[in-house]
Amino acid sequence: MLEAHPGGAAIESAALLACIDACFDCAQSCTACADADLGEDDIGMLIRCIRLCLDCSDLCDATARIVTRQTAADLDVLRVTVEACAVACRVCGDECERHASHHEHCRLCAESCRRCEDVCNAVVAAIG
Amino acid sequence: MLEAHPGGAAIESAALLACIDACFDCAQSCTACADADLGEDDIGMLIRCIRLCLDCSDLCDATARIVTRQTAADLDVLRVTVEACAVACRVCGDECERHASHHEHCRLCAESCRRCEDVCNAVVAAIG
Amino acid sequence: MLEAHPGGAAIESAALLACIDACFDCAQSCTACADADLGEDDIGMLIRCIRLCLDCSDLCDATARIVTRQTAADLDVLRVTVEACAVACRVCGDECERHASHHEHCRLCAESCRRCEDVCNAVVAAIG
Amino acid sequence: MLEAHPGGAAIESAALLACIDACFDCAQSCTACADADLGEDDIGMLIRCIRLCLDCSDLCDATARIVTRQTAADLDVLRVTVEACAVACRVCGDECERHASHHEHCRLCAESCRRCEDVCNAVVAAIG
Repeated sequence: MLEAHPGGAAIESAALLACIDACFDCAQSCTACADADLGEDDIGMLIRCIRLCLDCSDLCDATARIVTRQTAADLDVLRVTVEACAVACRVCGDECERHASHHEHCRLCAESCRRCEDVCNAVVAAIG
Repeated sequence: MLEAHPGGAAIESAALLACIDACFDCAQSCTACADADLGEDDIGMLIRCIRLCLDCSDLCDATARIVTRQTAADLDVLRVTVEACAVACRVCGDECERHASHHEHCRLCAESCRRCEDVCNAVVAAIG
Repeated sequence: MLEAHPGGAAIESAALLACIDACFDCAQSCTACADADLGEDDIGMLIRCIRLCLDCSDLCDATARIVTRQTAADLDVLRVTVEACAVACRVCGDECERHASHHEHCRLCAESCRRCEDVCNAVVAAIG
Repeated sequence: MLEAHPGGAAIESAALLACIDACFDCAQSCTACADADLGEDDIGMLIRCIRLCLDCSDLCDATARIVTRQTAADLDVLRVTVEACAVACRVCGDECERHASHHEHCRLCAESCRRCEDVCNAVVAAIG
């Protein structure tokens, strides 16, 4: 879709594409992980995981939409958005990591968070 | 991720998986199409396309989240949600179709809408 | 804001305004109730409440955005959206009601859900 | 609703409440302004306004949800989120301001953006 845009991309488009994909993937993983947590017997241990997954999903979702848009892009808005998303992914990934050995959904979600954190940081670097 | 959920899926899971993927894909396509429309010279012809893409993206996004959740699923909520999503995809797909020969992003978006409409209808059928 | 729109409203605007306000209010209440549930000692009794509040919040949020938009409105999309929202509010309101005597946030959330269900149904009636 | 939460607020609650209200209000204003822009004759002058309103609405919406949540709050995530929201509100408010004399919806939206920027910055200050 990005190539079908009438204008050019604001920054290097490989980084943008990877970021869009990772944000949508991470939003989905975090929604699924928070939901799976709700079905676990040890839910009492997973409260922080649920909370952070909900936050991370919301922020990844907003970030995916904002990074997808190419018309009249504002680099300040883009930068602070992906920076915030990277922090949410780092904190959520750390929490999911703690439960990765007990819950496969936490292990998978931690991976999505790591990947999303990395590509968000790559976009920050590409913006300069 | 769905297989990592501690409980079983509320309905046949292949239909759910296809629906989740199609909703996330269509949300992304509609966000990108609305944005590309904003960059086109004939934007005056694309107002309804932009409007419907924004609606369809919002509804696909909510639907993707709701269908992703497996814990304590409510089939009434699930049914009306995917039904609404199917209608939004049909109407948006029809509009994008009208511009498909002029704009590649509209052609791609119409395809995403059609696929999402189909899988949403398949989930409605699976719910019964 | 609605009065500042260059075109007229697609349907009777008092119903639309009430719907927009109630959807934003209910989205906020459901987000807060799901979060408060996560902090309760009897969280095991509140799993379905959390789940339905997350769904209802997502659908109210999408509905609020769609009803807010007045340009090139499509009545089919509008109708199925508010219909779906009314169902989500009814089911979520019923569940919150069950916990209203134990948790003030559930009592308040049930009220928001009832109000939102009512105004969504009023919009459906206004569309005809 | 915040007072009905079983735990205490992570930071001073008056700032949080003001932030939640302003974020929901700004999300709604930006959605309405982008939509009203689409109905204006001088839409060609409003492309950047539409784009920034869509971004600002998405970020305000995610921020409102994240700030609403009190259970197991993470101050790093909270801080970067409200910081990003403040930037989006500043940039969007500046753009809406440029059209405030021609379009009442832009004037109202600029006001919502300013208020939201201020309260987001107040939350950043309260976090310290």
